[in-house]
Amino acid sequence: MSTVLQAYRVLEDAHMVEARHRSGYFVARRPAALPEPQTMEALGGSVEVGVAEISDAVMRLAHDPACISFGAACPDATLFAEEGIRRAIHRALQRHRSAVTHYPIGMGEESLRRAIARHALTLGCDFDPARVLISNGCQASISLCLRAVTRPGDVVALESPTSFGFVELLETLQLRALEIPTHAAHGMVLDALQLALDTQPVKAVLTVPTLANPLGACMPFTQKRRLAQMAARHDVPVIEDVIYNDLVEDDKRRAVKAFDETGHVMVCGSFTKTLAPGIRIGWLEGGRWLRDVQKLKAVHSGAQSPVMELALAELLERPGHAIALRRLRRAIAERVDQAREIISESFPRGTRVTNPPGGFILWVELPQQIDSTVLFEACLRERICIAPGTMFSATERYRHCIRLGVGGSWGAPVHTALRRVGEIARSLQDVSMPPDASLRERSAAAV
Amino acid sequence: MSTVLQAYRVLEDAHMVEARHRSGYFVARRPAALPEPQTMEALGGSVEVGVAEISDAVMRLAHDPACISFGAACPDATLFAEEGIRRAIHRALQRHRSAVTHYPIGMGEESLRRAIARHALTLGCDFDPARVLISNGCQASISLCLRAVTRPGDVVALESPTSFGFVELLETLQLRALEIPTHAAHGMVLDALQLALDTQPVKAVLTVPTLANPLGACMPFTQKRRLAQMAARHDVPVIEDVIYNDLVEDDKRRAVKAFDETGHVMVCGSFTKTLAPGIRIGWLEGGRWLRDVQKLKAVHSGAQSPVMELALAELLERPGHAIALRRLRRAIAERVDQAREIISESFPRGTRVTNPPGGFILWVELPQQIDSTVLFEACLRERICIAPGTMFSATERYRHCIRLGVGGSWGAPVHTALRRVGEIARSLQDVSMPPDASLRERSAAAV
Repeated sequence: MSTVLQAYRVLEDAHMVEARHRSGYFVARRPAALPEPQTMEALGGSVEVGVAEISDAVMRLAHDPACISFGAACPDATLFAEEGIRRAIHRALQRHRSAVTHYPIGMGEESLRRAIARHALTLGCDFDPARVLISNGCQASISLCLRAVTRPGDVVALESPTSFGFVELLETLQLRALEIPTHAAHGMVLDALQLALDTQPVKAVLTVPTLANPLGACMPFTQKRRLAQMAARHDVPVIEDVIYNDLVEDDKRRAVKAFDETGHVMVCGSFTKTLAPGIRIGWLEGGRWLRDVQKLKAVHSGAQSPVMELALAELLERPGHAIALRRLRRAIAERVDQAREIISESFPRGTRVTNPPGGFILWVELPQQIDSTVLFEACLRERICIAPGTMFSATERYRHCIRLGVGGSWGAPVHTALRRVGEIARSLQDVSMPPDASLRERSAAAV
Repeated sequence: MSTVLQAYRVLEDAHMVEARHRSGYFVARRPAALPEPQTMEALGGSVEVGVAEISDAVMRLAHDPACISFGAACPDATLFAEEGIRRAIHRALQRHRSAVTHYPIGMGEESLRRAIARHALTLGCDFDPARVLISNGCQASISLCLRAVTRPGDVVALESPTSFGFVELLETLQLRALEIPTHAAHGMVLDALQLALDTQPVKAVLTVPTLANPLGACMPFTQKRRLAQMAARHDVPVIEDVIYNDLVEDDKRRAVKAFDETGHVMVCGSFTKTLAPGIRIGWLEGGRWLRDVQKLKAVHSGAQSPVMELALAELLERPGHAIALRRLRRAIAERVDQAREIISESFPRGTRVTNPPGGFILWVELPQQIDSTVLFEACLRERICIAPGTMFSATERYRHCIRLGVGGSWGAPVHTALRRVGEIARSLQDVSMPPDASLRERSAAAV
């Protein structure tokens, strides 16, 4: 009996079957077949980074209640166990009475560092808790790692398209972005990275090997191992973001860090997307650069609130954590399926969309002649926020793409809004110039 | 009656009288007269910054319960209202139930920004709450301001001696320190700063005009106004640290920012030293560079925990706040008096010590031939931690000085330890080489 149930759960997690209330398991409906994007491009040179003001607008509007937003990459508050998080903070306050009056220094509360080391086992990593550094969030961890291993003007290799947070990090640190072609399903193309390491002065590789944002790509095991080996051979730090790893099934969760034998992988994570968005705590294990990162952290920001660290430790250790994570994965997988179905019905012919194995982010490649910044502005007039593709690269190469986050509020009005995005895109396609003219005009504008 | 009581309180705050339980007010005992240090030096050139590993050791030992520590610049947990802080966090959790599950973006919780704007009125500043940016602490605020207005290699003018946290900030940002002579009572010498602005490419002035760390100097009103005017005239940002302003009496609390008419003053504060060390929240108003700072903050660290922000807002607004602050000021003033008395009794002849109008930090100038790093190591063997003067400058000029923080745990064993520091210093004086030889040797070592 329990084996059968277990089998159903595995199938359910893989979206092959779905449970219907008081009816049993049924073969899951799958959205209409949609081709995946072809975002791989030949390796170009490194470029200076300049992010348009559009990113600021998207971030602001993503959290504006007057908008229906597909702009954010963070799940909705309703997906989290509010009461449990609050209880954990209450308990931390009761059990550690002096946590509010002691000035915290050092790496962070030991109970949290131990809990994170235990959690990292699910990523295939065996950490010494004494080497886990607590930070103000995953982006803060990545910022510290980048600052520890680069100087202004250095070249950093990263996925293309990449998170716009990364584009902004590179811009503000005056680093040059070397965008590595990235496969929509299997992530950064390591042959291209190899070429980059052989021919260019790459000072760091910044990567999201599991559920890359925005493609949702997951590197296979063998590729993760190869990346760790490349880092060692070229003596170049790999900064690995594992913030999404908990959103895929067990076999895909393993980190590149799990294959790191030389300390060349610096790994950064947090629980903002999977446990408690309001706790604002991240972590990192800095490999051979840990002491430099730790020093930078101590000098530039100091410690986090011990109360929040203690509460997070408790949340991570509580028995229901794994179950809550499965529930979250299932809830967002349903949304992704619904969104892909709507896209297949209402977006222009020729649209391609990713089919990620987890997470709440879809990358949509529209027909070449559609300018996503024009689409962004047109949607905004109807109080719908999307993220145009130009945000996800230091180049212009994704002008016809958009990122859709489906982790926000959900339901009929949001479905309608998504359909409306498709309609607007179709109307833009109809009025746009023929592709050749459009391309010529774009090149002229870029000069 | 209330006027008389008020008068007594004013005298008490000024340490002229002291209250004895069930006995009334008495003329306060004053420590033996001690000369103040003569730390003013001629203006030198800017220097690259290299901080010894000794700072790390001091920071670590300062919080090691096995040590009696005079190393830290943070008051003891027992000086704060633990129960009140805990209650404020509980209330924040109850009143703002979704604060734990919403992903926070932007400048910080509005109630906190309003509370800080109201608090800033006591510093003579009239802030628009929409321009107050919440950060991860005062040092984090200063780091953001420095990064917004400088690039590696730039020259930053600052007090001499200065906070070792600042020395470390400059070092990790690869900035050059231009140490401006500083008067032990009146702070940075503005004629010297003027010379610096006229002759060197100063990109920012970093200053603690009220209770400078470690001298405890407070700039008079007129000087604060002049500094604001100099910043405007030379179009150079002044980064002002107001973390200690609440530890002096009302008339001295005013910030340089209060005189800023052009937005050239960026002001940074927190409540770590005066309200709740474990809350870990700071703030800043970035003047004309606010948007740059805000962008840098959003990209490199994101928001703080909204729960902690809401709790801090409540703590700042609660009626007892001003009274608690007076109590804290009185408690640490007593300790400073006791410490100065012990120093006058037990330290070597020729010792000079500051007499700060508030705060818990004393700067002690020992006879020239005493090497404070040798004293540091000798004290450490007896599990006493002091901060040697070399930590407070990018130069070697304070090798015969030490900083003593008397905010930590207090009582007879600590008094005995402080006496012991004096005895060890006397023994070092006795065995040391004649000053000339020592000087020669030091120069040789410096080559």
